[in-house]
Amino acid sequence: MKILIDTYGADAGAQPIIDGTVKALEKRDFTPVFIGNDREIKLLIHDRIKNYEIIPTNEFVSNDEDPVRAIRKKKDASIVLAYEKSKEEGYDGVISAGSTGALLAGGLFLAGRIPGIKRACLAASIPSVNDEITLLMDTGANMDCKAEFLYEFALMGKVYLENVMNITNPKIGLLNVGVEEHKGNTLTKETYNLLKESNMNFTGNIEARDLLTGKVNVIVADGFDGNIAIKTTEGVLKTFASELKNIIYSSAKNKIAGAILKNDIKSLANKFSPDEVGGAPLLGVKSYVYKAHGNTNELAFSNAILGLINYIEMNVIEKIEGELNGN
Amino acid sequence: MKILIDTYGADAGAQPIIDGTVKALEKRDFTPVFIGNDREIKLLIHDRIKNYEIIPTNEFVSNDEDPVRAIRKKKDASIVLAYEKSKEEGYDGVISAGSTGALLAGGLFLAGRIPGIKRACLAASIPSVNDEITLLMDTGANMDCKAEFLYEFALMGKVYLENVMNITNPKIGLLNVGVEEHKGNTLTKETYNLLKESNMNFTGNIEARDLLTGKVNVIVADGFDGNIAIKTTEGVLKTFASELKNIIYSSAKNKIAGAILKNDIKSLANKFSPDEVGGAPLLGVKSYVYKAHGNTNELAFSNAILGLINYIEMNVIEKIEGELNGN
Repeated sequence: MKILIDTYGADAGAQPIIDGTVKALEKRDFTPVFIGNDREIKLLIHDRIKNYEIIPTNEFVSNDEDPVRAIRKKKDASIVLAYEKSKEEGYDGVISAGSTGALLAGGLFLAGRIPGIKRACLAASIPSVNDEITLLMDTGANMDCKAEFLYEFALMGKVYLENVMNITNPKIGLLNVGVEEHKGNTLTKETYNLLKESNMNFTGNIEARDLLTGKVNVIVADGFDGNIAIKTTEGVLKTFASELKNIIYSSAKNKIAGAILKNDIKSLANKFSPDEVGGAPLLGVKSYVYKAHGNTNELAFSNAILGLINYIEMNVIEKIEGELNGN
Repeated sequence: MKILIDTYGADAGAQPIIDGTVKALEKRDFTPVFIGNDREIKLLIHDRIKNYEIIPTNEFVSNDEDPVRAIRKKKDASIVLAYEKSKEEGYDGVISAGSTGALLAGGLFLAGRIPGIKRACLAASIPSVNDEITLLMDTGANMDCKAEFLYEFALMGKVYLENVMNITNPKIGLLNVGVEEHKGNTLTKETYNLLKESNMNFTGNIEARDLLTGKVNVIVADGFDGNIAIKTTEGVLKTFASELKNIIYSSAKNKIAGAILKNDIKSLANKFSPDEVGGAPLLGVKSYVYKAHGNTNELAFSNAILGLINYIEMNVIEKIEGELNGN
């Protein structure tokens, strides 16, 4: 299996990308195809990988650029080269920690949408107290959505979970301001009706306070709201963890207590760490594409690659096509 | 000062409403005017309040009803009687833990909007690590918003903070998926332009991960997104606190550590507890109205009453009118 790896776009540069790839190779066999600066990549690999390819380029799409325009103009940008290569036989998937907008634009204009799907979306795994698997989708690819887009997100989430995560008949919830059917804005009310009429296991609205309680397996939201929910979660966890740290370091007595609790608090932090998942599949496009976090590190990028491999092996794209054709 | 107090609508019934009022009377002098079941109110007061009035009724608007319809049909519902009375001389403000929809509908149809204001909104105080005061508005009154509504929210938030909280030239941020100007959906892009052109201290977009970091004093959002943000915060804090509790009770060793940290963790929890504020003003209507949390308790309801009194004393409604007229 060959995985196309964009070495541009991570906050910390190419280092965590290469290190994460090395780490992933300890668990699974695949051929990394790095796209980026030839010399830097070789220096960073430093004999740690036997079989790999490089597609050399020094161009990339930054977060500040208009993604659609950049994808069209910058023919040698790393993400553009990744998408072009992904269409060739023998290249199985694309992973990038770079601009979400560029990844999405590339997905739509270079890879193309799965026939019948109107919008691609990012399906982020979020942690839950009861270890139930929950996907929040979309978490940032689509800003202004229609109800039919959200319906598609639910459908793709269902197929993904059934195949990649082995969940039978996953529970679908709609992110909303109240659990009652009449609650919400125009978008959620229309989406509620579509989901209610579907054959999916739709359990109704879910409030944002239940994001981490594992009540459902798919939380459907438009990309704006999903992004607000996931970044609020991230921010609150970070704030609470740092306040707790301040408490523990505030006195000699507290430091002793902190030392006792250290390991347990660490596993709690790990349970809710975004690094455990490391990324999210871009569902709805004809290539297997994974978005790694911009602030990725070795562990997170390694986990993202492993997630991508799983996604590829389960033939999810073919299965979404099958679901759309009623197979 | 006479405060109209809706005794219906709290999850725990009239008890926390009456207890909270008793507690508030320990700090400030005012005459409570209770609206609800005459006998129950008298029983719950049980000689603890000297001067009070009762407007007796057994009717109320529940969370399950269509609020506009209910406000129009149920002439004796507690919230309807509260609004009607608030127009009479000598009655200064309204507080309710009941249906937000009914409170809003009553505000619009019974009290009326401040001339020049198109939408009323709930301005919730949210905690911050650096003890900066932050209002998130709207947090649930308006589901489908236009940019001009969000502009009004910012303006009302500014006047409220300048007068009630003594903050000079409060910093205004727009809740968005990225800090860059071009980020967001149609609504936030249009709102960005309006705020940029205004005389307010607009500092740009703010991401949801900065909700609790005290970077700005007003976070502007539509009621749907504000509600997602505040309920996500609530849910994550609750989840994290309960997981921490599990850790502490998991072993004898951990219990000792927990006992050492107990007081510090408790003050941290209090700092981020919604009970510290207890409610939110409904800005934009011609009466002084405060929404208490549905799951209110004695402390929260007491704090909400004290917030309402402060809001009334600072003549915020007149000052919003002044700001709209360019005074």
